[in-house]
Amino acid sequence: MSIRAQQVIDWCRKLATLSIEPGRTTRPFLCPPMHEVHRLLKEWMNRIGMQVSVDCAGNLRGVLPGDSPRMVIASHLDTVPNAGAFDGILGVVLGIALCESLSCQAARPTIEVIGFSEEEGVRYGIPFIGSRAVTGTLDAKTLAIAEPAIQDFGLEPSEIGQARLAPESAGYLEFHIEQGPVLESLQLPLGVVEAIAGQSRLEVIFEGQSNHAGTTPMKLRHDALNAAAQWVLRVEQEASAHEGLVATVGRFNVEPNATNVVPGRVTASLDVRHTCDDNRLAAVRQLLAAAESIAARRKVTARWEERLNQPAVPMDAGLCDRLARAVEAAGYPVHRMSSGAGHDAMIVAPHVPSAMLFLRSPGGISHSPRESVLLEDVEAAFAAGEKFLCQTW
Amino acid sequence: MSIRAQQVIDWCRKLATLSIEPGRTTRPFLCPPMHEVHRLLKEWMNRIGMQVSVDCAGNLRGVLPGDSPRMVIASHLDTVPNAGAFDGILGVVLGIALCESLSCQAARPTIEVIGFSEEEGVRYGIPFIGSRAVTGTLDAKTLAIAEPAIQDFGLEPSEIGQARLAPESAGYLEFHIEQGPVLESLQLPLGVVEAIAGQSRLEVIFEGQSNHAGTTPMKLRHDALNAAAQWVLRVEQEASAHEGLVATVGRFNVEPNATNVVPGRVTASLDVRHTCDDNRLAAVRQLLAAAESIAARRKVTARWEERLNQPAVPMDAGLCDRLARAVEAAGYPVHRMSSGAGHDAMIVAPHVPSAMLFLRSPGGISHSPRESVLLEDVEAAFAAGEKFLCQTW
Repeated sequence: MSIRAQQVIDWCRKLATLSIEPGRTTRPFLCPPMHEVHRLLKEWMNRIGMQVSVDCAGNLRGVLPGDSPRMVIASHLDTVPNAGAFDGILGVVLGIALCESLSCQAARPTIEVIGFSEEEGVRYGIPFIGSRAVTGTLDAKTLAIAEPAIQDFGLEPSEIGQARLAPESAGYLEFHIEQGPVLESLQLPLGVVEAIAGQSRLEVIFEGQSNHAGTTPMKLRHDALNAAAQWVLRVEQEASAHEGLVATVGRFNVEPNATNVVPGRVTASLDVRHTCDDNRLAAVRQLLAAAESIAARRKVTARWEERLNQPAVPMDAGLCDRLARAVEAAGYPVHRMSSGAGHDAMIVAPHVPSAMLFLRSPGGISHSPRESVLLEDVEAAFAAGEKFLCQTW
Repeated sequence: MSIRAQQVIDWCRKLATLSIEPGRTTRPFLCPPMHEVHRLLKEWMNRIGMQVSVDCAGNLRGVLPGDSPRMVIASHLDTVPNAGAFDGILGVVLGIALCESLSCQAARPTIEVIGFSEEEGVRYGIPFIGSRAVTGTLDAKTLAIAEPAIQDFGLEPSEIGQARLAPESAGYLEFHIEQGPVLESLQLPLGVVEAIAGQSRLEVIFEGQSNHAGTTPMKLRHDALNAAAQWVLRVEQEASAHEGLVATVGRFNVEPNATNVVPGRVTASLDVRHTCDDNRLAAVRQLLAAAESIAARRKVTARWEERLNQPAVPMDAGLCDRLARAVEAAGYPVHRMSSGAGHDAMIVAPHVPSAMLFLRSPGGISHSPRESVLLEDVEAAFAAGEKFLCQTW
C-alpha cells in the first residue's frame, strides 16, 4: 500500500540534493540547479503522458488531459536556505504521483500540476512570484526586478501574460506540510485548511536613556529593556487569552547592548495572526496601547511603524467540504484548521476556488534539514487526493 | 576665584584634542598622541618646579618636593573611544593645578601627581595597567601582552619594578567625575567616596525551542524571549527592593532574531553591584534561582556562567574623614557615597590609604563627548583639595 507514498518521499529526498550549496538544500528562484529539478520532473511527467512546459515566470507546468473540470494541483519548487526536503516540493511530487495513479483510469478530470518557481521570497525579498504570475497579479516592478534571473534561465519575461491559468481552471488544490505542531499534538495525519490567517507586522521601538550600569541608581533609570520586557509579557498574555490568536516578538535588538550599560533603546518586531481580521486588528490596537502605557509609566517612549497588514484569505467553502468528504471517504479523520503561514493557495484563492490539505509535520519542524513527513501521512494524503479528484464534479 | 577652575577645564579641553581619531577623543594605552599629552603636562609641571619622569608602564609622574607625609594625587590619562574631556584626566590636571597653587607655600607635603597610562581596558581588554604597575600587582602575562606597546612608546618593560610607589607614600587621593546622576539629583557639587562597590558579572542563557511564529499555537511554544523577559523584570524588582543594590541586564541577544520565528535562545548579561559583598552575592543567588524557576515553569532551560566576582574595596576610613573635614572647611556640604564604577583608587587602596572625591556629572553623562563638569564644582574640588593637603598630618 505504501510503495507509492515511499516513492513520493524518495523523489523529494532526491530533489533536495539539487542545491546551490553542497551538503545543504538551498534553492532560490531560478537558480541553476532548478534546471535539473525541471528536467527530472519533466521526464517523469512525460512518461505518464502529461504535456509539459515552463512558463515565462519559470513555473514548471504539466497537464494530464481528461474530462472537465480542469483541476490545478500546485505548490512551490524553491526553498529557504538550508531547507528540508518537503516544504513546497512535496505538493508538486504528490500531484504528479496522483496523475500517474489516475493516468490508467478512463474517467478523470483534466489535471494541471504546477511547480511554482518562487514562494519563499529568498532571492529578492519578494515572495509568491510564481503564483502571482499565474494569477496575473505580478506587478511590473517585481517583474522588472526578476527579469535578469528569468532571462538567465533562458526564458522571455515579456510573455508573462501567457503564464495565466487556463480560464477553465475550476479548482486549485495544494498539499503542503503543516510546518507547525498542531496535527502532531492531536495525533492526526491530515488537516483541511479553511483559511490562511491574516497577518500584522510592526516594529515597536522603546527609547529610554543609556546610563552607566554601576553608577545609576535603579530609581533614576529609564531602562528601555525593562520596558520592552514588560511589553513582551503583555504580548504573550494577550495572545494566550484569545482562541486562535498568535502573537510573537521574534526580533529584539538592544542598544548599546553592552554588559555595563543600562539599555537605551530596544527595537522589537511584533507579528500578530488570526483568521478573523477584526480580532487581529483589535489585538494589535490593544498591544500598541499597552506599549504606550508601559512606556509612559516608566518615563521612556514607545513608537511604532506598521510593516504589514495582510487580511485573512478564506479557502473556498464548497471545495473545503469536498476535500473533507474525500478525507473521510479515504478513511481518515477530518480536522479543519487554519494556516498561520502564507502559502501559494492564498494568492490563487481570490481567482480560482481553492483548497489546501496539510500533512502532519513531525516535531512541528520545518525550514530545517530536520524537516520530515511520515510515510503513513503521505499515503493518507495520496488516498484523500484520489478520492477528491475522482468525486463526481 | 574661579580663574584657576577655568584653567583646569581649559587644560582638559585642550588635552581632549589629542586623539587617534580626528574630531573625537579616543586615546587608548600609550597610543602616539599620548607623547604630546606627556609633553604638555611635563612642561607645566617643570614650570612649577616638579621633578618629572615617565615610568616603564608609561605613567607620567611629577613630584613637588615638600615635607612629610608624601601624598599621591592620581588618575588616568587614557580614554574610552569617543570619550569626553574629563573622565580620568581631570584628576591629573587638578592635581598639577593644586601643586601650582601650593608651590608658593612654604609648609606643604611632598606631592606626587601621577597620570596613569591605562585604566579603561580599551587596548587589550585589560584595565588598570597603570595603577597595577605602581602597586606591583601587574602580572607577568599582562605585562607580556603590553610589552610591544611599551617598547613602541620608547620605554623598557623589564624595569617594571622601578614603577612602584615610593615606600614613604602615606596617602592617595583621586579626584574623578561621578559618571552618574546621584550628586546632580541631590544638587551637590562633591561626594566623598567611602567604598567602591563589588561587582558580579554573569552570562545567563535561556534555551527554548525556535518555531514558526504563524503555525505554533501559544500553548505549544517554548519561547526563550518570554522567559528571559520575565526574568529581566525580576532582576529589576530585586534591585529596586534593596537599598544600594544595582542590577542590570545590559547585553541581550535573541536567536534566531527573525520577525516570524519564535525565539529559541536568549543570551543575557547580568551585572550586580553593591558595597556589601554579602548583599551582592545574596542578590545573585536570588536572581539565578529565579531564572531557574521561571525557565522550569515555561519548559525552557536556564544556565549561566560567572564572568566576574570582584569584592567591594573600602577606602581608608581615616583619610575619608580627613577629606570630609576638608570639604566642610572649604564651605561645601559633605555627602558620603559609594562608587558603582571601578577606579584606580580601587587598585591602590589595598596598598596605600586612599580616598576619592567625586565631582557632580551634569546629566550623569560620561563616556560621551557630552560629558562635562561645572566650573563651580571644579572650584569646590580645588578648594577642598587645598584644605585636604594643608591639614596638619
